[in-house]
Amino acid sequence: MKHSVHFLPDDITINVTSGENLLSAAANAGIYIHAFCGGEGICGKCKVQLEQGDVKSDSVASLKSTEYKAGFRLACRSQVVSDITVRIPDMVKADGKSLKRKPITTRSISPRSLDEIVGKWNANPPVRKLFLKLTPPTLEDNVSDMQRLIRDISATMPDSPEPTYDHPELIQYLATDLREKNWEITVLLLHNQEDVEKNHIISVESGDTTDHLYGLAIDIGTTTLSGVLIDLNTGNIIAEASSYNSQIGQGEDVISRMIYAARPGGLRALQEKVISTINSIIEEVCKKVIISPSDICHIMAAGNTVMTHLLLGFNPKFIREAPYVPTVNQFPLTKASSIGILAHPCVRLFLYPCIASYVGGDIVSGVHACLMHKNEEITLFIDIGTNGEIVIGNKDWMICAACSAGPAFEGGGIRHGMRASSGAIENFHIHPETLDPMIVTIGHTKPKGICGSGLISIVSELLEASVIDQQGKFYRHLNHPRVRTGNDGWEYVLAWKNESAIGEDIVVNEVDLDNMIRAKGAMYAGYQTLLESVGMSFSDLDRIILAGNFGAYIDLERAISIGLLPDLERDRFFYLGNASMLGCRISLTDQQRFHERIQVRQLMTNLELSENPEFMNHYMAALFLPHTDMNLFPSVQLKKKS
Amino acid sequence: MKHSVHFLPDDITINVTSGENLLSAAANAGIYIHAFCGGEGICGKCKVQLEQGDVKSDSVASLKSTEYKAGFRLACRSQVVSDITVRIPDMVKADGKSLKRKPITTRSISPRSLDEIVGKWNANPPVRKLFLKLTPPTLEDNVSDMQRLIRDISATMPDSPEPTYDHPELIQYLATDLREKNWEITVLLLHNQEDVEKNHIISVESGDTTDHLYGLAIDIGTTTLSGVLIDLNTGNIIAEASSYNSQIGQGEDVISRMIYAARPGGLRALQEKVISTINSIIEEVCKKVIISPSDICHIMAAGNTVMTHLLLGFNPKFIREAPYVPTVNQFPLTKASSIGILAHPCVRLFLYPCIASYVGGDIVSGVHACLMHKNEEITLFIDIGTNGEIVIGNKDWMICAACSAGPAFEGGGIRHGMRASSGAIENFHIHPETLDPMIVTIGHTKPKGICGSGLISIVSELLEASVIDQQGKFYRHLNHPRVRTGNDGWEYVLAWKNESAIGEDIVVNEVDLDNMIRAKGAMYAGYQTLLESVGMSFSDLDRIILAGNFGAYIDLERAISIGLLPDLERDRFFYLGNASMLGCRISLTDQQRFHERIQVRQLMTNLELSENPEFMNHYMAALFLPHTDMNLFPSVQLKKKS
Repeated sequence: MKHSVHFLPDDITINVTSGENLLSAAANAGIYIHAFCGGEGICGKCKVQLEQGDVKSDSVASLKSTEYKAGFRLACRSQVVSDITVRIPDMVKADGKSLKRKPITTRSISPRSLDEIVGKWNANPPVRKLFLKLTPPTLEDNVSDMQRLIRDISATMPDSPEPTYDHPELIQYLATDLREKNWEITVLLLHNQEDVEKNHIISVESGDTTDHLYGLAIDIGTTTLSGVLIDLNTGNIIAEASSYNSQIGQGEDVISRMIYAARPGGLRALQEKVISTINSIIEEVCKKVIISPSDICHIMAAGNTVMTHLLLGFNPKFIREAPYVPTVNQFPLTKASSIGILAHPCVRLFLYPCIASYVGGDIVSGVHACLMHKNEEITLFIDIGTNGEIVIGNKDWMICAACSAGPAFEGGGIRHGMRASSGAIENFHIHPETLDPMIVTIGHTKPKGICGSGLISIVSELLEASVIDQQGKFYRHLNHPRVRTGNDGWEYVLAWKNESAIGEDIVVNEVDLDNMIRAKGAMYAGYQTLLESVGMSFSDLDRIILAGNFGAYIDLERAISIGLLPDLERDRFFYLGNASMLGCRISLTDQQRFHERIQVRQLMTNLELSENPEFMNHYMAALFLPHTDMNLFPSVQLKKKS
Repeated sequence: MKHSVHFLPDDITINVTSGENLLSAAANAGIYIHAFCGGEGICGKCKVQLEQGDVKSDSVASLKSTEYKAGFRLACRSQVVSDITVRIPDMVKADGKSLKRKPITTRSISPRSLDEIVGKWNANPPVRKLFLKLTPPTLEDNVSDMQRLIRDISATMPDSPEPTYDHPELIQYLATDLREKNWEITVLLLHNQEDVEKNHIISVESGDTTDHLYGLAIDIGTTTLSGVLIDLNTGNIIAEASSYNSQIGQGEDVISRMIYAARPGGLRALQEKVISTINSIIEEVCKKVIISPSDICHIMAAGNTVMTHLLLGFNPKFIREAPYVPTVNQFPLTKASSIGILAHPCVRLFLYPCIASYVGGDIVSGVHACLMHKNEEITLFIDIGTNGEIVIGNKDWMICAACSAGPAFEGGGIRHGMRASSGAIENFHIHPETLDPMIVTIGHTKPKGICGSGLISIVSELLEASVIDQQGKFYRHLNHPRVRTGNDGWEYVLAWKNESAIGEDIVVNEVDLDNMIRAKGAMYAGYQTLLESVGMSFSDLDRIILAGNFGAYIDLERAISIGLLPDLERDRFFYLGNASMLGCRISLTDQQRFHERIQVRQLMTNLELSENPEFMNHYMAALFLPHTDMNLFPSVQLKKKS
């Protein structure tokens, strides 16, 4: 449900989802409000006055009762639950006026719906259950139990190929399963088209269990694993869970995991850890809807190349070393239980194939989800992270690459960098005259650090307010208490020690800025190199799809203003969120889409960017905010002039 | 190497294999010699005199030196090692003349060679090894290791389908295997055509190992398991071993094994036992030629339906109970190592499919070996054992059945019955006037009992000498010390206590005869029922193939004379020996033949004989020696008259 929020005196209206935090709403609308404490309600500076409607407010301690009665609320502790008109008081606006900017929010810039991007998918899963009443054997008709079963399946599905089977586990209990319920059984079939069209018998259960048909989608992230349980009879999500990858103790990123895997017993330990994480997710989703893990009939998972190697126990050693070779990209179909995953012993673990060492199944899944392989339009698919993955193409061809962007967007190499979790500064405005910050943290608590989207906001705002120059260096003449030299050189203080949750000042410094510029430069150089390799330029791009959790929180204008994203018409951009999970969900649910995943992999060609001279040239040129070639950023140029 | 043995005074010559025991040779030639002790050389009665050539004789103790110098030898302790002429002395011939009969030996009645029956097969196995020198990866060409491997295999075999792979074990070590010998590797491929033509990567080894390509054929018998190791580069057998099935402690026959399998833990225990037997065979053959079990690249096995269920750990319970339903006849391809067989972890265990509960993979393998599926000629394929299996057909159709013949032919239900092992009476003649026996035992030792072929000899001889009548009853008037009433009624003494190895008289009694008649009656009724079911009679049969170890030792004339085999022209009969093993060997060695095994199974239709009224009628009529309808046995009738 959506509500409109009308900000006065600036007369800016934005639509927000019910429950949205009012401070976040203001930040997204480009409205500056004094807000130093991140949203915990303790600084009491972000008072706003309601003129119409009301908000749900959980802290009134900092307000006098007269203020409350007059409609004052702390923006940071208020949730929008109806259409409202709210005035930013002069004292809050610092200089008597708010900062007028075109409201740009994640939601509002995507006029085309998710449906248009990912298409429709139906609850017609690749697995199906058939309830059968078999004719019991007689001396005249005493074919084997398996033959009897296959005969009846074929009779029920006369147009399908004769079902196959290959699980010793299935056969082991077949005789008793059939007789237990007097030859009334439910058979679980998998419809696969890998080589030839096949109906594969996965399991046989006594009695009628057709109402139990569940599928599990798993996104195997380096940091986080997510699981979604789907009722495949309806296609509905019925439970979700996620958990930190418990390999984190063995390293934060894939490189350190690979180093750990090279230690004696390391690979095995990492495999066990990711499997135990998957199992904890399975247990959690199953508990929520009171089913057993063995009720899960189909599993579709995606992960990057390293994570998938670790999951299957394959040596990732040579992924790390030039020339970056994975052992395998197209994974053999494994029984989930064979590697220790809690599931029916016969259920297979389908894994999205990978393309190269640093373009993994998560990317293939995302590309699959957004139907690039069916679309005429030339799409740039971007997943920004430590390794930024880029795919360009359409239904006829696709080229992809990984840019070693460095971990800046995930908080790595940044003095106060952190992952996008509670306390991370995710949105930031600077008052152009006072240079005071407005910080919004995840969870609206005291700030602990800066996450990727926060960093983009900060760099963009510091640049626009002329606190830093286009090389990411602080102007030395500002003479402002927040702009100072610290241990690592020049820095800007985002939160003073007493406002922060970590007992020290939270700052962004020139080293951080440099890392950020390298990271965004690598991404941009990646787009350019790939486009050039197919003789195209940015203007040929019909759509830009931002995948990944980070992509979902990017402020488009700001990302363009620093040169992380190309300066194209805004309505060509789409946010897909966790595209990898989306692909898994679609593959689980829709047979047709499931089979198409093979095409996606076949279309994708990898281009190696490391030591690629074109890439290096583009990269050097991109180490500037937004870019050394300002012709590439016409809207940024225009804004500067205005 | 063959030698001729010319017997005087009867002027009978037969050809024997070098090393043949002279007593056995005489018995096969139909020459009666006093021989009571089975061949241990202690009774000293079987003296013969060499007139030309010499024999290899290992016991001269019972001979005076003058006798030795005069050319006398104990037939039972002499081996034929050159062409000889030998005279049976009067004192040995008991009545002054030997028994003239047309020499009939297993070997001599098969003018058509084994090659004609089983066809040629070539050393072109379904597995092959390719030695490849891969181009090491570079940044420009950094596809996955698996892709690189597949690319090179495809380049080497441009007309073959792109190879597939599915073993996690293969992938796990691929990266290090490739790099260990600087990208020089040997890949083991399996060419399969189950659904579609496929080249499957089984394993990858560092360096050039193409000279190591070994296959193992295993015949999984209820009593005995045999293994043959073949060098697949040449097609030659390089080692053989066999061993009693160590399940024997859990029951002698399939019925008692199934009863044991129903006990808690019983199935598992039986599975472990048969696998440990297979492993002991593998260890033995590998030790003989100094290779490792992991050098075995291909395994082809055959066993009856119960043995195969037990091997794979499938519940055989319903095979035993009417309507006799196996769980599965077409077995999924299993990695040999997955059930504990000592082999390379990726090598598959190919098992001949079964047709029904009592027509197993051993029969399919035998039928496959003798090319019934390629032949216009109508063939009757017979494997005689506790369950006699019968197949009739040609390249267009086949019908098969199992007759529950009872265990008489394997020594079961026979007072002094035993399996065909050392000390078993395997050949027997009776002196038509003195009624004294000539007994030949396996291993030429003191007699311990009677095996199947011995029993057939005994019944045939007793019948011909009018010691028993056509119902298998002893004539009461004979008044001979060897024909007497014992604990189980009337009996004939084959060996007196002091001549036997068991400290008691060895006899054959009317209960034994009755069991034997039931067993042969069931077989004969089986042939008739199957023939009638396809509107044929015996005269339509072009070939009769006797399979099984027992079949290999049957004396054809005698088997016909008692009605175990149909009375057809002798040159239509062929002995195939261990046809099951033969099929496995052919499948191992010849790709073309390997693929054809699928057709064989598809051609075969089972007819259930139990409770089949036609079968019961034929069975009742067959409980006579040779048959109540003597028109079915013209040559026997003719001999009686002569």
